Amino acid sequence: MSDIEIAQKAKKKPIIELAKDHYGIAAEHLEPYGHYKAKMSLDYIDSLSKQKDGKLILVTAISPTPAGEGKTTTTVGLGDAMNRLGKKTLICLREPSLGPCFGVKGGAAGGGHAQVVPMEDINLHFTGDFHAIGAAHNLLSAMVDNHINHGNSLGIDIRRITWKRVVDMNDRALRDIVIAMGGTANGYPRQDGYDITVASEVMAIFCLATSLKDLKERLGSIVIGYTGEQKPVLARQLNAHGAMAALLKDAIKPNLVQTLENNLAFVHGGPFANIAHGCNSVSATQTALKLADYTITEAGFGADLGAEKFIDIKCRKAGLNPSAVVLVATIRALKFHGGVAKEDLNNENLEALEKGMVNLERHLNNITKHYGLPCVVCVNHFTHDTEAEVKLLSEKVEALGGKCVVSKHWADGGKGAEDLAKAVVDVVDNKPGKHTYVYEDDQPLFDKIEAVATKIYGASEVTAPPKVMAQLKELDKDYGKLPVCIAKTQMSFSTDPTLRGAPSGHTVEISEVRLSAGAGFIVAICGNMMTMPGLPKVPSAEKIDVDDKGNIEGLF
Amino acid sequence: MSDIEIAQKAKKKPIIELAKDHYGIAAEHLEPYGHYKAKMSLDYIDSLSKQKDGKLILVTAISPTPAGEGKTTTTVGLGDAMNRLGKKTLICLREPSLGPCFGVKGGAAGGGHAQVVPMEDINLHFTGDFHAIGAAHNLLSAMVDNHINHGNSLGIDIRRITWKRVVDMNDRALRDIVIAMGGTANGYPRQDGYDITVASEVMAIFCLATSLKDLKERLGSIVIGYTGEQKPVLARQLNAHGAMAALLKDAIKPNLVQTLENNLAFVHGGPFANIAHGCNSVSATQTALKLADYTITEAGFGADLGAEKFIDIKCRKAGLNPSAVVLVATIRALKFHGGVAKEDLNNENLEALEKGMVNLERHLNNITKHYGLPCVVCVNHFTHDTEAEVKLLSEKVEALGGKCVVSKHWADGGKGAEDLAKAVVDVVDNKPGKHTYVYEDDQPLFDKIEAVATKIYGASEVTAPPKVMAQLKELDKDYGKLPVCIAKTQMSFSTDPTLRGAPSGHTVEISEVRLSAGAGFIVAICGNMMTMPGLPKVPSAEKIDVDDKGNIEGLF
Repeated sequence: MSDIEIAQKAKKKPIIELAKDHYGIAAEHLEPYGHYKAKMSLDYIDSLSKQKDGKLILVTAISPTPAGEGKTTTTVGLGDAMNRLGKKTLICLREPSLGPCFGVKGGAAGGGHAQVVPMEDINLHFTGDFHAIGAAHNLLSAMVDNHINHGNSLGIDIRRITWKRVVDMNDRALRDIVIAMGGTANGYPRQDGYDITVASEVMAIFCLATSLKDLKERLGSIVIGYTGEQKPVLARQLNAHGAMAALLKDAIKPNLVQTLENNLAFVHGGPFANIAHGCNSVSATQTALKLADYTITEAGFGADLGAEKFIDIKCRKAGLNPSAVVLVATIRALKFHGGVAKEDLNNENLEALEKGMVNLERHLNNITKHYGLPCVVCVNHFTHDTEAEVKLLSEKVEALGGKCVVSKHWADGGKGAEDLAKAVVDVVDNKPGKHTYVYEDDQPLFDKIEAVATKIYGASEVTAPPKVMAQLKELDKDYGKLPVCIAKTQMSFSTDPTLRGAPSGHTVEISEVRLSAGAGFIVAICGNMMTMPGLPKVPSAEKIDVDDKGNIEGLF
Repeated sequence: MSDIEIAQKAKKKPIIELAKDHYGIAAEHLEPYGHYKAKMSLDYIDSLSKQKDGKLILVTAISPTPAGEGKTTTTVGLGDAMNRLGKKTLICLREPSLGPCFGVKGGAAGGGHAQVVPMEDINLHFTGDFHAIGAAHNLLSAMVDNHINHGNSLGIDIRRITWKRVVDMNDRALRDIVIAMGGTANGYPRQDGYDITVASEVMAIFCLATSLKDLKERLGSIVIGYTGEQKPVLARQLNAHGAMAALLKDAIKPNLVQTLENNLAFVHGGPFANIAHGCNSVSATQTALKLADYTITEAGFGADLGAEKFIDIKCRKAGLNPSAVVLVATIRALKFHGGVAKEDLNNENLEALEKGMVNLERHLNNITKHYGLPCVVCVNHFTHDTEAEVKLLSEKVEALGGKCVVSKHWADGGKGAEDLAKAVVDVVDNKPGKHTYVYEDDQPLFDKIEAVATKIYGASEVTAPPKVMAQLKELDKDYGKLPVCIAKTQMSFSTDPTLRGAPSGHTVEISEVRLSAGAGFIVAICGNMMTMPGLPKVPSAEKIDVDDKGNIEGLF
């Protein structure tokens, strides 16, 4: 059965009832969106503030490959398994982006028997959060060009506008455009471009904001570009932040859905893990911690990107204290890191597996040494994995001092992840860690980047053109205390996506630095960053359909 | 009190309870969106098909002026008044567009004590319908450029692509753009542009579709442009219509909200009344007719545009039979038509009122003579209207053989519209009309346009450049049975927006003809049509705000 067929056979329970039964949440605190999705009121969240926090577990992964690793699937399966063991557990996932559903990647609500449902809704418009984020972003864009059109009293330099437009669609033709053509009635022509909505700074702000007030303050601090004198121009100066926050007043409330096994799940926010921090919303994570004894959350891409930003940005800013990390790997992906071509991944290959293990080893080492947290390695089992491969991998991980558990949640749901759950609970309850940061607040920005690159990526040095070095020095004055958000390829520890395994001794070159003053971090771009995907020759959209009764087909 | 203050003081009832109490609709047939908005399931709508239809009343208006007429306000007030009189009545309104909320126009959920609530939600994202329409539209756009990028096997001529992109924002800088710059990775550069979402053909299709199956069929018939041999290329050929319909599977379900007086209201769909047909969805209107004894619906702009299209497109295609028309006018607007400047409208001016009456007279005459329906003129009362003005207007309308009722729903809600309600019920119950079309299906397209222009607009002739004439002849072959949708300024009976009152003997020049094959009409563009508004120097957005508790301020 395909993911969507499994999801459509799920015996869903009304979300209002589930919330009441599992956590005693009264119906009045939830705003239903249909019968199986709900937003939680901010008043209710405020009312929880005195509750003690439960324990936090991060799910991350080895460096992504086309073979698939299954972070979300593992988060769902682990959560279901812990609930089966009688541990009161909530999971916090990112919302999928609409664009990739129509491209190659498909949906992102788990897979097999470890999914959150209603899968189609979550993958399509869900509760409208991303549309709201897009509208808030594009309102600011319209107000920028409108300000210029009506006299430009702030003196915005139209060559120095950094605020682009966004759409939640894979549309390469919009990457690089020229706007305001057609004469005086349409404004001042200039170069512009579209990013996909998840790449918007509004998304990052949305995920880090702790209240509506904080959200509005951050939106006001967005730098939209610079004057001719290179002074930053803020959204606040355009009086845009109030209306932007108004557009986000419902979106900011965390979304509740359920797993196939009727356990509650938060699915809220979804920023990129390269140009942004790649984690679900702080508000969802904090609320889950108040409600449940255990909260499991995920971070985007591999542990070099997602987990590092989870620790250095999200935990630092939101005061979160994770107890342990689950590092997801698949034998297929490790063989890919060992040099096997995508089409040959179903064949046993112990040599390649051993070779590819270096990727896992580096991530495992980073987690325990640089993030200071205990790590359980989860082997997300695939049908073609052989016994010999599983045995080799387990032995290798144990030899590295790690705990390795094979998990079959994709095939068997929570039951298939019980061993994983026991291992995780054992660590969290008996040997919890205390995280450390990769860098400290008061290090200069360049040194922060260097710390991540040398400690986490295994680079030997960080370089930057003189212009970028000067920019960093300038930013150190007013924004020096901010964390850094390094944007590099997720496919490799290096900045070269073709270097699989665990490259080391490489140079990380910072090509560009951007201030995300609203989100509260400095983005250091290392290599080409794709912030607007394209569609493949035969996009998934061609197979997606809906029958006369409203049942979706072809979404995966 | 401002509109939003009145709306926020409303004693709303849970929408699920209201639907149960008023129409016996079980909770399972409704999908709640928060506590005060709900979508009605398609299964439930299907289950009503054997019910007898109630009576249908159209609310339209004189030619719009900056003074405001209040069609939506009157529709709401009349509905509340009829319910007060014990007449089981449902109203069907259009959904407001998000863009204008941030510009000059503000929201569109009624006004004063005649509003639908929750006003802020309805004016902002509501249930996400317009975002879904935008996403469906832009998915097709992305698939067009993607097809060309990957080899263009359909041979689309990039100079002849008519399918633009949309956003629900007033953003003049996007009217005329160049896309796919930046090199080979981004596709083939070409001219493009954005319309506001309400101008999308997907919106028109959405509002005319009678089922998901019909919706998908219509989406497949969209013409996105032409080949080098000038053959039309359809969305179906790109396999886009299935995914587009999947994106609209929830949006197509009619939305239920309530009035300030706790009467149910459908608010669903909202196409422009110039380049599209300007009416709420057929599905909402048909459902209301099944449930209530009386259904009141509105059509956009003045009766020359909205009412004509309501009759000639919506009623014709959906088999609707209106019983009567309410023509809304204000004394302020009539004085404006009589030549008074906007800033002087609060002063009594009987002479200008009498002069401006010609506008009302033309519309009244059209309704009774050309649409074949009885008409009640509603004078939507404003604070500065003098007794002498009201008396003059009433006498004039009666002299024309019309019924004229002063209505004070803005100030007094349903109670203020009871006289209007009595007059309308009297006509509908005792002297209902039977509508006639302005033209017949089998007339050539040019003759259809001519019929509307000469009968309704009072034009003496219709002209078109030879190229447009040839296009019309060509379209007559395959699409000759379709109705025409004339796009002209709403400010005047002529194509010149500055000609107030009731100009006649003018020439209507068709500058361009567009095939909306999915919606099922031919658009004839006469004059400059603005399909992407701009923001004013100080946009409303600057005053919109949200407090720490999520309460919106400054929306009007």
